[in-house]
Amino acid sequence: MTNRPHTPVLDAVAGPADIRRLSDDALASLAADVRAEVISAVSETGGHLGSSLGVVELTVALHAVFDTPRDKLIWDVSHQCYPHKVLTGRRDRIRTLRQEGGLSGFTKRAESDFDPFGAAHSSTSISAALGFTIGRDMGRPTGDAIAVIGDGSISAGMAYEAMNNAGHEGRRMFVILNDNEMSIAPPTGAMSKYLSSLYASPMGDLHKMAEGFESALPGPIRDHARRARQLVTGMQTGGSGTLFEELGFSYVGPIDGHDMSQLLPVLRSARTRATGPVLIHVCTTKGKGYAPAEHSADCGHGVAKFDVQTGTQAKAKSNAPSYTKVFGSALTVEAQQDPNIVAVTAAMPSGTGVNIMEERFASRVFDVGIAEQHAVTFAGGMAASGLRPFCAIYSTFLQRGYDQVVHDIALQNLPVRFAIDRAGLVGADGPTHAGSFDIGYMAALPNMVVMAAGNELELMHMVRTAAAYDDGPIAFRYPRGEGVGLDLPERGNVIEIGKGRIVQEGSDVALLSFGAHLSECQIAADQMAAQGVSVTIADARFAKPLDRDLIRQLLRHHKAVVTVEQGARGGFGAMVLHDLANDGLLDGRCQVRTMTLPDRYIDQAAPAAMYADAGLTAVDIAATAMQAAGLKLKRSPVGVA
Amino acid sequence: MTNRPHTPVLDAVAGPADIRRLSDDALASLAADVRAEVISAVSETGGHLGSSLGVVELTVALHAVFDTPRDKLIWDVSHQCYPHKVLTGRRDRIRTLRQEGGLSGFTKRAESDFDPFGAAHSSTSISAALGFTIGRDMGRPTGDAIAVIGDGSISAGMAYEAMNNAGHEGRRMFVILNDNEMSIAPPTGAMSKYLSSLYASPMGDLHKMAEGFESALPGPIRDHARRARQLVTGMQTGGSGTLFEELGFSYVGPIDGHDMSQLLPVLRSARTRATGPVLIHVCTTKGKGYAPAEHSADCGHGVAKFDVQTGTQAKAKSNAPSYTKVFGSALTVEAQQDPNIVAVTAAMPSGTGVNIMEERFASRVFDVGIAEQHAVTFAGGMAASGLRPFCAIYSTFLQRGYDQVVHDIALQNLPVRFAIDRAGLVGADGPTHAGSFDIGYMAALPNMVVMAAGNELELMHMVRTAAAYDDGPIAFRYPRGEGVGLDLPERGNVIEIGKGRIVQEGSDVALLSFGAHLSECQIAADQMAAQGVSVTIADARFAKPLDRDLIRQLLRHHKAVVTVEQGARGGFGAMVLHDLANDGLLDGRCQVRTMTLPDRYIDQAAPAAMYADAGLTAVDIAATAMQAAGLKLKRSPVGVA
Repeated sequence: MTNRPHTPVLDAVAGPADIRRLSDDALASLAADVRAEVISAVSETGGHLGSSLGVVELTVALHAVFDTPRDKLIWDVSHQCYPHKVLTGRRDRIRTLRQEGGLSGFTKRAESDFDPFGAAHSSTSISAALGFTIGRDMGRPTGDAIAVIGDGSISAGMAYEAMNNAGHEGRRMFVILNDNEMSIAPPTGAMSKYLSSLYASPMGDLHKMAEGFESALPGPIRDHARRARQLVTGMQTGGSGTLFEELGFSYVGPIDGHDMSQLLPVLRSARTRATGPVLIHVCTTKGKGYAPAEHSADCGHGVAKFDVQTGTQAKAKSNAPSYTKVFGSALTVEAQQDPNIVAVTAAMPSGTGVNIMEERFASRVFDVGIAEQHAVTFAGGMAASGLRPFCAIYSTFLQRGYDQVVHDIALQNLPVRFAIDRAGLVGADGPTHAGSFDIGYMAALPNMVVMAAGNELELMHMVRTAAAYDDGPIAFRYPRGEGVGLDLPERGNVIEIGKGRIVQEGSDVALLSFGAHLSECQIAADQMAAQGVSVTIADARFAKPLDRDLIRQLLRHHKAVVTVEQGARGGFGAMVLHDLANDGLLDGRCQVRTMTLPDRYIDQAAPAAMYADAGLTAVDIAATAMQAAGLKLKRSPVGVA
Repeated sequence: MTNRPHTPVLDAVAGPADIRRLSDDALASLAADVRAEVISAVSETGGHLGSSLGVVELTVALHAVFDTPRDKLIWDVSHQCYPHKVLTGRRDRIRTLRQEGGLSGFTKRAESDFDPFGAAHSSTSISAALGFTIGRDMGRPTGDAIAVIGDGSISAGMAYEAMNNAGHEGRRMFVILNDNEMSIAPPTGAMSKYLSSLYASPMGDLHKMAEGFESALPGPIRDHARRARQLVTGMQTGGSGTLFEELGFSYVGPIDGHDMSQLLPVLRSARTRATGPVLIHVCTTKGKGYAPAEHSADCGHGVAKFDVQTGTQAKAKSNAPSYTKVFGSALTVEAQQDPNIVAVTAAMPSGTGVNIMEERFASRVFDVGIAEQHAVTFAGGMAASGLRPFCAIYSTFLQRGYDQVVHDIALQNLPVRFAIDRAGLVGADGPTHAGSFDIGYMAALPNMVVMAAGNELELMHMVRTAAAYDDGPIAFRYPRGEGVGLDLPERGNVIEIGKGRIVQEGSDVALLSFGAHLSECQIAADQMAAQGVSVTIADARFAKPLDRDLIRQLLRHHKAVVTVEQGARGGFGAMVLHDLANDGLLDGRCQVRTMTLPDRYIDQAAPAAMYADAGLTAVDIAATAMQAAGLKLKRSPVGVA
């Protein structure tokens, strides 16, 4: 592309082995080159810019000091891995980030030996690092494990579990706390406040370094005497223990994560001297070194393609409001009607749209941080007190709170409303963020009502229906992205629990859609109509309770019924089959087919391309229906073999 | 029954309102009566004796000081709730604990207004309490929320998430840390060590009480001056903050949880003065006041019926080793063969049987504490390093690590072996411990192999098969309780992935069993044979990958195929139906039925009684198969209408 940055030091680096041959000064220059390269690349691809820019120096320093890939460097969440990818043999593909066929936006074992453990959900890195540490101690050919985890991610319970266990094990391993005082949203929780207090004042507050490290610090270092002296004199011994020390870690820091003359000696000392678990507290600035990111509200967390000079991001063409926004607005309307409605989010106020309600009713929206387990049971407690909580969590993250959904909500029949955004395939974030499993894992639960929105108007109805439903838990799922462009009323309607609807009446085959693939079903029906086939389209609305009358009616009057859902096997189609089989209705008079996500993970691409990969396009639907009904296509639609 | 204890104070107490009328001296007497009653009752029923005896005084004191049920008293896990049940209107049924039709062994909303939030899995209480606190602050008719949580449970990540969020909210609420230095197994983790250090020496170490509480303490209390003075003088002001203070709580304690003259003034002070979240650290002894429990290794954690005088527990009649023991022994055999085999448990070494391996290979068994999320990903890290981890977690608790199974194991195709004990219905622990959902939530995951053991010999085969399988993750489930009594070899065989087996060949109907209901299928087949019906029995072994050839063969040669599993809809039967439907094989020539757990929770009883309630007996199976095949019973077997 044009205007590629001038990166002479980076150009000479093929991988970490080359990094380790550079002088400390050259490492600082390398970091500058990497930063320029990341800005340039993400300007073409979009992606997680801010977090990657925050760890440029840290990434260079870690590869310079540790023996990767023998040493296992594990990035938590790993949306900050772009500098790491640039430096580990993937620079030639860095401009394919998050694109179809390109590099993943996260670390991925299949992609590189330098990615020992993939990630994308938060707070897994310390657990994995401890696992590698055990492997090393049991003689596997692996070096030290280093987990790099943000201050937002360390507030999740899983990180605490891992720290607690690692402290107990007492084995040599490294946790780098990358503290930028900001997860995706402004920091929340007491942990954030505690971290802030640790470095309230500047260098003088580098207030403690474990004693062994201090004595090992290169007092009269040849090249960097001045900065090293600053570093050492900035430290104080003694003082009260930190939380990390109480958990059994040696605590080092905080240090300036953009200053190579702090990073390198501290990491080298730690590597030389550590005998047990060490936590190195590194302070960084999200978006560092790129003014438009540093100055934006979210520090360039997730950006579209942008102009490097101005930082102006490309605007996505939008034909309709996003499902997320429709949800947030509809929730706000309901909240206005009912003062008992509250909302819970786990560090995703804008991602889930509850920020729209927050603008009007700030005291009734609760952001609990990255803590889905707590979020669910907290909502359960509120429901038990008589409030009407909406618990808004992406499908993929609700997996984190699954036991709580089972044990605290469904079993107790508490009326918590689960707003399940990002259901189905989600595009550039790829398989780690796919919402593939929620239909099955929710519909299996006694007492649970499970809905999916066929379009954004249906979503409005479901928000209102959930608000009005007090008999037990209720969930509704909807996809990432924008709606189909319907005119929307001020407020949705209450729909009858367990009742689907006929969208279009026909007589040959029936498409029974659960969720937003309703639009693909419509296209498929139109394709079939062009072949002279008469197609019924039904919107099931409910996976549980099923509209059994509707399903039987479809069965009676068609040659074939095809269920369509944006989810894995074991979900809606399975519930339909169970129901029909056990009533003896699968007798061949009407053929039934279930179209689901296939039994494999789908790599990132545009959602439509992912669904094509998955065999879930309109063409696939039409072909399946026709084949099931024993109808021959008069002419093959595009794409059908 | 005979030998009921003499409990004059308790006899005069119908509920907490009566407790509040008692003098402090009488409250101590009441505690003694409650202890005697609990010992007597549990001697008849069996149950969680040790934890309940540990909180007798605390329970009396909490009801004396707080205004239950308006104030919401939430017991974490709640296996320690027997004194609470005795004191809250359920004494007349306390000898039905954990029995069919009787009181639940846990708190249960449906059972009493004094149970505001049910529990059974650990570490949920603080989240729920915070939810009630929000409800109070938003005007719901509820008082203060009090969570009582053990030192084992507070090491789970969920409790940390909740503490962090509660500290951030800063609202008035109470967390009682019930610290008995012991969860089920000996304490593990750095948190345990930290708690121990807080009270390393006796009264002199009541080392901090938040300043507001101190000044409020009844210095010259009329009735209890001497003990109160002891309490106050035992405290020191100042000192370094505790972990709990760093999370935003006022910390009070530690105090002696068996001493009413400490409990009552501290709780009263806390109730009077708290403006924000308060943690009260109470030290108790598990099994307190009953020598046989205090002196047993597990402090009487879970006991069978016993003789009150001697503490001797009734021995269950055992015809065969338990599945748990068979697993532990088979794992040990494999560990002996392969030094890379390691095992992970989340605070359940003996419950899962990995203690058997621990006796031989202690350094290769990792008890991570109550931390299922960490346990799963930790195992993933070990697998990525080249070790062969077995992650042994009960079905119901694996729900806690579901996202980690999806995101860290299945998606990365890491060879972690999941040993899923307590699959299906579990008996006295009831619906909170039922392993109902794992077949579906595991089989939905690409890359995952899902097996179920038809009997204890099959379990041995599956342990060996899992040990030998390095291509990705593999899971095997097996039930609570004892096997069918087969002769067992030294070591199991490796079975072919995705291949089931024919147990018995017939020609009319086929029973396709997945898991331990194989024995019920055999009984059902025998019942049908007595009617002249020829029955095939197949053991599917795999829910994923399915043995598609076997299933098609059954379909071709029988009038009906009935799938049988100890799990919810969306599991094995659903996978069979998906497969057959999409090949167009559900054409009525062979009828297919799926027998699963019903869509409701099954209350505690003996497992056989629970399965009868669930409609999953041999009689049910035979009736379903006969009806599906259009065969009439010549005479009705017992129990069929």
